Amino acid sequence: MTTLSIHDLETPSVLIDLDRMERNIRNMQARCDALGLAFRPHIKTHKIPDIARRQLEAGAVGIACQKVSEAEIFAGEGFHDIQIPYNILGERKTARLAALALHNRVTVSADHPTVIAGLSAAAAARDMTIRVMVDLETDIQRTGAPVERAVELAKQIDADPHLHFAGLLVYPSNATIRPALQEVLARLEQAGIGVESVSGGGTGAALQAHEVPELTELRVGTYVFYDWTSVVKGWTTLDDCAMRVRATVVSRPSETRAILDSGSKTLTSDTIDGGYGHIVEYPEARIYQLNEEHAYVDVSACERRPAIGEIVHVIPVHTCVVTNLHNQLYGVRGETVEVTWSVAARGLVW
Amino acid sequence: MTTLSIHDLETPSVLIDLDRMERNIRNMQARCDALGLAFRPHIKTHKIPDIARRQLEAGAVGIACQKVSEAEIFAGEGFHDIQIPYNILGERKTARLAALALHNRVTVSADHPTVIAGLSAAAAARDMTIRVMVDLETDIQRTGAPVERAVELAKQIDADPHLHFAGLLVYPSNATIRPALQEVLARLEQAGIGVESVSGGGTGAALQAHEVPELTELRVGTYVFYDWTSVVKGWTTLDDCAMRVRATVVSRPSETRAILDSGSKTLTSDTIDGGYGHIVEYPEARIYQLNEEHAYVDVSACERRPAIGEIVHVIPVHTCVVTNLHNQLYGVRGETVEVTWSVAARGLVW
Repeated sequence: MTTLSIHDLETPSVLIDLDRMERNIRNMQARCDALGLAFRPHIKTHKIPDIARRQLEAGAVGIACQKVSEAEIFAGEGFHDIQIPYNILGERKTARLAALALHNRVTVSADHPTVIAGLSAAAAARDMTIRVMVDLETDIQRTGAPVERAVELAKQIDADPHLHFAGLLVYPSNATIRPALQEVLARLEQAGIGVESVSGGGTGAALQAHEVPELTELRVGTYVFYDWTSVVKGWTTLDDCAMRVRATVVSRPSETRAILDSGSKTLTSDTIDGGYGHIVEYPEARIYQLNEEHAYVDVSACERRPAIGEIVHVIPVHTCVVTNLHNQLYGVRGETVEVTWSVAARGLVW
Repeated sequence: MTTLSIHDLETPSVLIDLDRMERNIRNMQARCDALGLAFRPHIKTHKIPDIARRQLEAGAVGIACQKVSEAEIFAGEGFHDIQIPYNILGERKTARLAALALHNRVTVSADHPTVIAGLSAAAAARDMTIRVMVDLETDIQRTGAPVERAVELAKQIDADPHLHFAGLLVYPSNATIRPALQEVLARLEQAGIGVESVSGGGTGAALQAHEVPELTELRVGTYVFYDWTSVVKGWTTLDDCAMRVRATVVSRPSETRAILDSGSKTLTSDTIDGGYGHIVEYPEARIYQLNEEHAYVDVSACERRPAIGEIVHVIPVHTCVVTNLHNQLYGVRGETVEVTWSVAARGLVW
């Protein structure tokens, strides 16, 4: 058997440093263990069953998937405790969800009576029970019901013969949510409705988990690889960033401009502080623009400047969307490619 | 055989209106025919051989691919005239390019002596000739050599026994490039170097093609679907936009906020005027933010407002990156799904 080296890979390729990834898995699990929190990694970041398996082996209780299609792939790969923190709507989609929940411990969330009615109908059609959490609104103003409605939704679920009230869900779970969370919990206790789980999420919020003692569970995705956003926001250091995009300097049109072969179809258009990633070999360089297959780099601040043809490594802004762009990720130990993963749930957005 | 309807598709799904796409293909071909320009569609927009075949049937001379991996897929599908307007670097990649050029009419571009030397070495190793164009710098300041260097590069290619100088390449090809283009052409004529082709590109620039009579060829990608950027920039009207993302309103957390199930993994993070796309049914609505699987929509300006569970259609900001995110596109005629395409070259970025 020939050993594959990173030098054998075409650029751009997405490398995962296995030592760093394994350390990230151990450390987040240890943090949750220390706080007495169940840990549920979100697979949206890697979309690879083998990585989820390593997360479970480290102590995770199950996984989170954002969409039914992701959950179907992972259930087929032997993951039986799956949370989908998402409103699942539409007769066909709730029927697929019910089919999945027949043989697996599936938990979804809801923030509206219509969502709950749809789940109930799908469960009734199979004479089964579906587990439903209530999604509580947070400061990011995405989905989620405010306190009053959240209590009503929990009562609706609890009263439905085909639904099981599985607790409360928040994203992110930083301390600002605490007063609302406490009020909902108090009112549900008054109503005699048990809350088996309070699930929080967010890699940044994981640092604040001890400030929200009401949490019983944490679901976090990005931590497994981290990214340039995690570094800029102070959630971690460069040394924990496990994903690097191996790229080539394909053009040096001017003294101060370098062009890489990794554009928005490789790095995504997500930005942090107006930049598109961090070049390990040229920390003073700035990726200031992307076209589909070109990264524009300002190298004017670099003492040494890259030559055309040179290989560099980019820590991307947002790993979860990078994974979804690629057919393979390469798990590397030093310069050896130890594993080539197919991104099994890539492109599955429904 | 059961006919598939758009109502049978899960959301989010990417629909291509076949009537509009066919009209776009006819119209751009007619424009090029009228100007006496060879037309070479860029497949980066659709990455689907069947669509490229329709473009060739309409009169296109060949295709453009941005990366070697895309070209390999299309060559395997029977496309034998392929231009790669990109600097191809690295021994392994130039060897693959040479292998491709053995049995196909492959043309690449170069903006640096190092690139040319690499192509020459790969061609020499097989005792063959590779066709190379010189990439001339334009106002977008991406790749490309300025006038003086462009002339030198053309001479280097022309003098190389294993390379064939195949002309000049510009992107975009609006009128601002004309003085530089004329100077290079004059100096090459002086040097007795024939210029068989001047290839311009860009869907927007296609409108200005008549202002650059030096062009002999046009390569354009986006026109096949168009997108919200094309409309905002005045390149076309809404009625020509062939790609629509069918999405569900999955949450209505407040009177003025709707959440769709199509986030950055569906619509991409590319923006135009700070927005992430246009909702056909709610033209006054504004998609102001995306998370991976959520679009945040401000519906405050809409007289009628969408209900939870409602289906809407989004014209995305940038079709070329949307295609690359999805496993399938659905070609529709009215409400009938006439063809389900696999996105054959999806994720091929090297």
